[in-house]
Amino acid sequence: MKKIEIGIVGGAGYTGGELVRLLIQHEKVKISYVTSRKFVGKSIFKRHPNLRGFTDLKFISPDDISKVDVIFLCLPHGVTASKIKEFSSLSNIVIDLSSDFRLKSKEDYNSYYNYEHPHHELLNEFIYGMPELHRNMLKESSKIAVPGCTATGAILPLAPIVENFKINKIIIDAKVGSSASGASPTDGSHHPERHGVVRCFKPSNHRHLAEMYQELKNMDGKINFSPHAVEMVRGIQSTIHVFFDQKYNEKDIWRTMIQKYRDEPFIRFVREKSGGYRFPEPKIVMGTNMCDIGFEKDPSTERLILISAIDNLVKGASGQAVQCMNIAIGIEEPLGLTQLGFHP
Amino acid sequence: MKKIEIGIVGGAGYTGGELVRLLIQHEKVKISYVTSRKFVGKSIFKRHPNLRGFTDLKFISPDDISKVDVIFLCLPHGVTASKIKEFSSLSNIVIDLSSDFRLKSKEDYNSYYNYEHPHHELLNEFIYGMPELHRNMLKESSKIAVPGCTATGAILPLAPIVENFKINKIIIDAKVGSSASGASPTDGSHHPERHGVVRCFKPSNHRHLAEMYQELKNMDGKINFSPHAVEMVRGIQSTIHVFFDQKYNEKDIWRTMIQKYRDEPFIRFVREKSGGYRFPEPKIVMGTNMCDIGFEKDPSTERLILISAIDNLVKGASGQAVQCMNIAIGIEEPLGLTQLGFHP
Amino acid sequence: MKKIEIGIVGGAGYTGGELVRLLIQHEKVKISYVTSRKFVGKSIFKRHPNLRGFTDLKFISPDDISKVDVIFLCLPHGVTASKIKEFSSLSNIVIDLSSDFRLKSKEDYNSYYNYEHPHHELLNEFIYGMPELHRNMLKESSKIAVPGCTATGAILPLAPIVENFKINKIIIDAKVGSSASGASPTDGSHHPERHGVVRCFKPSNHRHLAEMYQELKNMDGKINFSPHAVEMVRGIQSTIHVFFDQKYNEKDIWRTMIQKYRDEPFIRFVREKSGGYRFPEPKIVMGTNMCDIGFEKDPSTERLILISAIDNLVKGASGQAVQCMNIAIGIEEPLGLTQLGFHP
Amino acid sequence: MKKIEIGIVGGAGYTGGELVRLLIQHEKVKISYVTSRKFVGKSIFKRHPNLRGFTDLKFISPDDISKVDVIFLCLPHGVTASKIKEFSSLSNIVIDLSSDFRLKSKEDYNSYYNYEHPHHELLNEFIYGMPELHRNMLKESSKIAVPGCTATGAILPLAPIVENFKINKIIIDAKVGSSASGASPTDGSHHPERHGVVRCFKPSNHRHLAEMYQELKNMDGKINFSPHAVEMVRGIQSTIHVFFDQKYNEKDIWRTMIQKYRDEPFIRFVREKSGGYRFPEPKIVMGTNMCDIGFEKDPSTERLILISAIDNLVKGASGQAVQCMNIAIGIEEPLGLTQLGFHP
Repeated sequence: MKKIEIGIVGGAGYTGGELVRLLIQHEKVKISYVTSRKFVGKSIFKRHPNLRGFTDLKFISPDDISKVDVIFLCLPHGVTASKIKEFSSLSNIVIDLSSDFRLKSKEDYNSYYNYEHPHHELLNEFIYGMPELHRNMLKESSKIAVPGCTATGAILPLAPIVENFKINKIIIDAKVGSSASGASPTDGSHHPERHGVVRCFKPSNHRHLAEMYQELKNMDGKINFSPHAVEMVRGIQSTIHVFFDQKYNEKDIWRTMIQKYRDEPFIRFVREKSGGYRFPEPKIVMGTNMCDIGFEKDPSTERLILISAIDNLVKGASGQAVQCMNIAIGIEEPLGLTQLGFHP
Repeated sequence: MKKIEIGIVGGAGYTGGELVRLLIQHEKVKISYVTSRKFVGKSIFKRHPNLRGFTDLKFISPDDISKVDVIFLCLPHGVTASKIKEFSSLSNIVIDLSSDFRLKSKEDYNSYYNYEHPHHELLNEFIYGMPELHRNMLKESSKIAVPGCTATGAILPLAPIVENFKINKIIIDAKVGSSASGASPTDGSHHPERHGVVRCFKPSNHRHLAEMYQELKNMDGKINFSPHAVEMVRGIQSTIHVFFDQKYNEKDIWRTMIQKYRDEPFIRFVREKSGGYRFPEPKIVMGTNMCDIGFEKDPSTERLILISAIDNLVKGASGQAVQCMNIAIGIEEPLGLTQLGFHP
Repeated sequence: MKKIEIGIVGGAGYTGGELVRLLIQHEKVKISYVTSRKFVGKSIFKRHPNLRGFTDLKFISPDDISKVDVIFLCLPHGVTASKIKEFSSLSNIVIDLSSDFRLKSKEDYNSYYNYEHPHHELLNEFIYGMPELHRNMLKESSKIAVPGCTATGAILPLAPIVENFKINKIIIDAKVGSSASGASPTDGSHHPERHGVVRCFKPSNHRHLAEMYQELKNMDGKINFSPHAVEMVRGIQSTIHVFFDQKYNEKDIWRTMIQKYRDEPFIRFVREKSGGYRFPEPKIVMGTNMCDIGFEKDPSTERLILISAIDNLVKGASGQAVQCMNIAIGIEEPLGLTQLGFHP
Repeated sequence: MKKIEIGIVGGAGYTGGELVRLLIQHEKVKISYVTSRKFVGKSIFKRHPNLRGFTDLKFISPDDISKVDVIFLCLPHGVTASKIKEFSSLSNIVIDLSSDFRLKSKEDYNSYYNYEHPHHELLNEFIYGMPELHRNMLKESSKIAVPGCTATGAILPLAPIVENFKINKIIIDAKVGSSASGASPTDGSHHPERHGVVRCFKPSNHRHLAEMYQELKNMDGKINFSPHAVEMVRGIQSTIHVFFDQKYNEKDIWRTMIQKYRDEPFIRFVREKSGGYRFPEPKIVMGTNMCDIGFEKDPSTERLILISAIDNLVKGASGQAVQCMNIAIGIEEPLGLTQLGFHP
């Protein structure tokens, strides 16, 4: 069988590098090119040293891209939207890892991104690339917007709950690794400053809220989201405190979760009564496409504590993108994504 | 002036070692003895290597303790209560760092500690050692129970709020360093297992809730507390999500905070509009007796995000104990506690 | 083709868990059992949470082991030797990850391990399982002793050098992750104590010296080895300072290295002139079976600085063990070991 | 007594911030100004958040500096030299923390710094500010060049040895925290890249070699130095492998060390037979002006393993600068430098 040809635009960053890592290990695809304006002509492994010995590809200029079967866009927010016509002309399947086509409402771009979307007429052509919620739409789709990392960590555990229960209030307290802020150094990412922090860097009004409201229906004004930078490179742990407008018990939650996610290849339930790993833990999913989910009911306040863990660069970005691709082109969904995590 | 003589019972653990560190630097006291059954006869600096060159003291047996002006008890929970009569006979001022005398209600010991308190008749003799709330009672007090570390990080920022506003719900999402679990190795504290975790180790029903309910009046059923182990040795960061049953604005919160804490030597307000350190950060208070407090109002849900940072071994234990001692014996409150923190 | 049946004795530790991780992803084998006296009857994923969803195996008692095609022994040093007859009777291929059969000389066990070897008559039956040095002997071998982790990190870069140059002196300064000390908590592995250390835990006389002397011929009295514990879970970085009794230049070193390792599937050379990753880096090989090697000649003292990086649990233990198995049973050498590393 | 007036030029970096931290706690001095071109008019605590509440000083422009009793220069290498006349005119005591006046030989600036020194006629006016070696010269000196951080960690343990023994070869393998590279973000200091490294960033020819050769007499061609970046913010651990051209035993080393450093306020010897802290450890000296020194003789190769630990920003920079100032102005040498370190 002829291999599927892949183009990656914006390959010097972390999501681009992660796509190369995953796709090199994917038996049915072949990477045709990876672009980087800054590193044109340099071996990809000079930027992503883990790839040394696994690929001879060199970065090409974004001006030199050509037709491929699937094109992945790993560009800064705003850049993709401005060039979307060009990219669409080069590939039947466009998979965008930026936020430029995640939202359906152009007003959301105004209010959350302070940005006038230049191609809002295309917003409805993009499928929000979360297979657990939109698998049917992703089949044979040609335009996919890959969800934000903290949005993924919040929406996946919450989706079955908000569909089936009356919700009063949701508080998402996320803990995020440093790779989630990208590959460009800043004052805040300087190691002596970033090391050892527990930093509530955006207590309210984070942009990913827009995705959460879009995907979790009828939650207007009920979602509170505060991400924290912690000492970690990869990973997002979300502790989600849910308050209900009804009675419930843990068994109801179990039933709902299992009904929704029973056959999902990348959802695991984690709830042990003893040991150190009783709930989801980001280091255990590091490098994998897993979203681990666990929960407990607070017996004294009726709160549900929902906990999820993902790798922000895999299930939170490039892994989910590959999963979407597999679905869109009709091959086995887990291809290229079956690598196990680590302990310790 | 004759120096105040100090006894420390249980000096091999982290709070005991931290008391020695602080009291060596305290100009008006002299440590008479430090006990450890396990390390009897050994130099204290063999257990606490930071003290090398600063003290020649050796651990003595707890059977050999004698009269002192102030006795600090750093024993495991349960042990203090069983021997409290002996300790009280040896010193006019007893300062207990365990949880044995923090709670006023013996029923709380039953329900939160699953423990029948052997000396509940003494519970009301102990003052809850949080100077910001009970300074007047601490003056000339003879029995002091030092608050729990996560309780300190939650109660200090919340006290002015719950006193002055109508509260609907409080969610405390704390991130805690590994030293908070004490000096004894366990499977969970083994470095390869503990390293890099974001571990919700007790999503509900943590014991320190009892202290929070006791000190924050009229909050029955409104407090939700979930501590997390993160990659850090010292420090507690608490992000506290508060929902109100009334309107409020940020200025009201500022006014309330300042009114309550204006003259406190160990409370700082941290709220910057730019830079990396816009809110309290545990690494900045590391080694100090500070409790840093910051906050922001979520414009879309009216939630108040309250953030605090302390060093669990200083303001969360031994530093607060020394502060209480200074108050109880009538010397300058900040003595021995003025050391600055670090950057970076 | 019928899958090769595998038994793993001592599966609760880190090398045992790592074997399961690697062998689950190995297309030609099937794990028949994994033993643990302590965790009998428990799911393997409760001990190794990364394996959740990938295996239903439960630990069995070491008393219940049966015949398999290949048996891996992950027992504490000393235990393997005492039971080697039993293990040998159960499998045609015995692969031991302990130190019990690495050395050829029973006197070395006396002097380095302070241990009277109970089956020294078998020492010569075991092949030292380092494919780069002993591939031919490993083919169709039936008993393999997997090298020590720091020995691997030192011997691989040094072997071509000592074979081809006159050596005056070698100083190996290694930096080691905490998983190298095994899965049992100790005072020294307690997170608050082990966190952030740069600890020269064995400045001289480390046991792995015996392997280095055995495998690097004619180096008597010339090797100096000082391992350091650093803040890392997996990984060994070795900076090896080599002094010569002859002239040489960098090109000679390159030629020697390439001649020796040109076709090795798990050796990479790393030597960049710019960027952050100019020399081998343990985090880049984390999770892989790679040994990265780089070097530089000191222009002012003629010293050669040789640098290697491995994952102590993979190339330093379980990965090398699988590589040896593949060779011994005559299947493709890299099977099960092709997973890429990570960046960042 | 009138307080000594201090000016700090270049206060936005880490050594400048550390000077402020130390001098605020120094009872006999008063900081008159701290400069930063970038942060003019901003509160110092916005850049150094640990200082919040301890100083109201704002950064002034370097163009606005005035006469003081002591001026500290914390400027980038090269800048100090170009403006040294101006600085000298403003203060009787100039203490430079850059490398611009550490070396006596202008040729060393050519070869190690690739730099034509603009004021080499002044090189001999500066005293190399290492009190343990040059205390007498520092008394009443007016120009002091504070040693480099890795040079301090190497020279202090080596000085007594090279003075008293015949040396064959010295290999210094240092492990360095990220703050040693300063406060400006780079690709290499970006947290996802810098986190978890064991990076031999300069295997040979490091600039600090020039200082080592200058201060350790008659060692031409005998010193080998390879610093490594490890996961740590503050601290330098140096493992120094020394080979001799004579016989020696450990007692000789002890005698030599004690003779040299017996009365030094900031040297401690660390050599325990058991426990985790048997040798110097950078985290134990973090925040202090201590240089901890330990050693062991390798019984099989006669090598001496010398180990030191310092805080690069204190004994390796600002603390040593303050110690020099105290000596130069004739006040108690340890003033402002007596803060204890931490455990854990």
